[in-house]
Amino acid sequence: MLNEMKTSTTAVFYDPTKPFELKDLPIPNLQTGELLVRVEYTTLCRSDLYTYSGQRKEKSPTILGHEIVGRIAAFGPETIEKDLNGAAIAVGDRISWAIYASNPHAELSKRGIPQKADGLYKYGHEQLNEHNTLHGGLSEYIILKPHTPLLKISENIPLKIAAIINCAVATVAGGIRVAGPLQGKNVLVTGAGMLGMIACAMSRSQGAAAVVALDSNPERLAVAPSFGATHTIPADSDLNAALYSLLGNVKPIDVILELSGAASAMENTLEHMAIGGTAVWLGATFPQRKMEIDAEKMVRNLYSIKGLHNYNEQDFIAAVQFIEQHHSDFPFETMIHDQFNLHQVNEAFAYAMEANPFRVGVRVNA
Amino acid sequence: MLNEMKTSTTAVFYDPTKPFELKDLPIPNLQTGELLVRVEYTTLCRSDLYTYSGQRKEKSPTILGHEIVGRIAAFGPETIEKDLNGAAIAVGDRISWAIYASNPHAELSKRGIPQKADGLYKYGHEQLNEHNTLHGGLSEYIILKPHTPLLKISENIPLKIAAIINCAVATVAGGIRVAGPLQGKNVLVTGAGMLGMIACAMSRSQGAAAVVALDSNPERLAVAPSFGATHTIPADSDLNAALYSLLGNVKPIDVILELSGAASAMENTLEHMAIGGTAVWLGATFPQRKMEIDAEKMVRNLYSIKGLHNYNEQDFIAAVQFIEQHHSDFPFETMIHDQFNLHQVNEAFAYAMEANPFRVGVRVNA
Repeated sequence: MLNEMKTSTTAVFYDPTKPFELKDLPIPNLQTGELLVRVEYTTLCRSDLYTYSGQRKEKSPTILGHEIVGRIAAFGPETIEKDLNGAAIAVGDRISWAIYASNPHAELSKRGIPQKADGLYKYGHEQLNEHNTLHGGLSEYIILKPHTPLLKISENIPLKIAAIINCAVATVAGGIRVAGPLQGKNVLVTGAGMLGMIACAMSRSQGAAAVVALDSNPERLAVAPSFGATHTIPADSDLNAALYSLLGNVKPIDVILELSGAASAMENTLEHMAIGGTAVWLGATFPQRKMEIDAEKMVRNLYSIKGLHNYNEQDFIAAVQFIEQHHSDFPFETMIHDQFNLHQVNEAFAYAMEANPFRVGVRVNA
Repeated sequence: MLNEMKTSTTAVFYDPTKPFELKDLPIPNLQTGELLVRVEYTTLCRSDLYTYSGQRKEKSPTILGHEIVGRIAAFGPETIEKDLNGAAIAVGDRISWAIYASNPHAELSKRGIPQKADGLYKYGHEQLNEHNTLHGGLSEYIILKPHTPLLKISENIPLKIAAIINCAVATVAGGIRVAGPLQGKNVLVTGAGMLGMIACAMSRSQGAAAVVALDSNPERLAVAPSFGATHTIPADSDLNAALYSLLGNVKPIDVILELSGAASAMENTLEHMAIGGTAVWLGATFPQRKMEIDAEKMVRNLYSIKGLHNYNEQDFIAAVQFIEQHHSDFPFETMIHDQFNLHQVNEAFAYAMEANPFRVGVRVNA
């Protein structure tokens, strides 16, 4: 099979002022522990758009795209032919994999934070050069490094939904792990984007009593109930009054899943947490003014604020399980606009920036 | 035995402008589930001093003192004659008990936060009136309400040390529970007062690799190594340089136990936490300016801030166990100035305010 594959058509990103260039990059011989994957579908994550628009600076040239699904095309020498769950994997298997590889023996890996550990390699974020190639999802093939957490996934999961598992779904799974058990709790989801919808769906699936979605965009809020939100509140509301009228209680929120990154959302929502409440901050991945936090309220109300970036293996496994079990319970497929292929990557990004749908999908080999 | 006890000499607090008045309060008949305790020793907690000095306003008149050790004097009707560990208890037994009683069936109790649950009754904090009497430690006798977590304690524990278990030690035990396992971690203790010293001792006993004490008072810092601090840093130091020179690493702190309540301590120390670090805020129990927190750093570094006030039953049990096992390993006894009796309560408070020792003790019936 390797003989057939000499090159991989790849969309190369240089900088925000230049269009992507499609190049046929050579597929190098696989090194020890590596795996070649034939990419089927890649969705454009918000962070891809930040890089595209120049809001965030990445090393370049690079291959963007890290929300990916594909099939195993070839194993490198000594590559372990098992997934994270210990299941055998073979050429042709459909897989999802974490957005990173790192040293599993590093201190942070042992502490459950492999996404920040030594030797970190992030798909769709590395500089492209002759020693370091085929690392992003906007390419026919991608090379997975040793110690990349990967899982075989069911053929039943629709293609578009399979693509979002390894970033959007896994990140939310991490936030929910960090929040603690949600059974019977009132959850406030701030930011009703892709991750917000997944957060609503996962919270409800875990038995949350109420799931309140908060956003400034009425169209997104209108969709939230189909993802399990029990209530929606426009961001410009009097939050106290709105929560009281919906939930019949002052300070009714047990858990905040903060996905907007908006300072006002982080600051204002804390006021509405019940004693012992936990706010998980996931959205604030860009520089902004400092949050103003009342320390006495943190102490007397036993509040916790927990920051989380990316996710660990446990979260990735939870994400796959959630999608395997619930992909047809919520209209995830409607969130991904499927109208571009790899040759239309410039149009795909332009559309994502302009129309701002939940996600834009790029069909690669599918 | 009850026949002998008609009245209890009690130091009554009215307001910061008036001296305590010693009164012989009648000992009422015990109600269902109550317990009468003969107080032996009470230490003056920082919060007693806040009320005494007017920094904090409590309902008055009141009986201050909640850091207490005593012996069971009598059981009320149907009072359960077992402690939290299920051990039988009898008149004459030496006991420690939580600073509160609350409804164990309340939602917050079920969530592990009985110290904030419905029906909360706090020793040394209630208004004194004819229906509500003998609730503070500055009295010969105290009445324990039903559902007060209590534990029989060893006769081997020195009197002064036994007194600090149920507030200072248990609060720190709560902070350490909330911080998570300390084995091999670098712990920063901000505020080298009574709780700071206990935090150093407990952290070292739990296997912390380094315990760094930070305070503006050089005399207190000088004592910290005898309580297990491996390093001390004056609060006006360049913290980054000091930590680097002591621990040979940038951002070396895994856990912050914040006991000072100082805004600068809460804000500045966060900058020195390793990825995945946890700051437990316990000291900020008074109004002050808001903390300025960098949300992006919280997210990208996976930082947690956890507020905690008081403690739960698990923490109280841990506090008693710690003192039973380690009371002679650290010079706790030297922290409590033992020169006052109940009749000298005005002098005891004046001395506490003026000389500011770690703790001032009041010998009651001992």
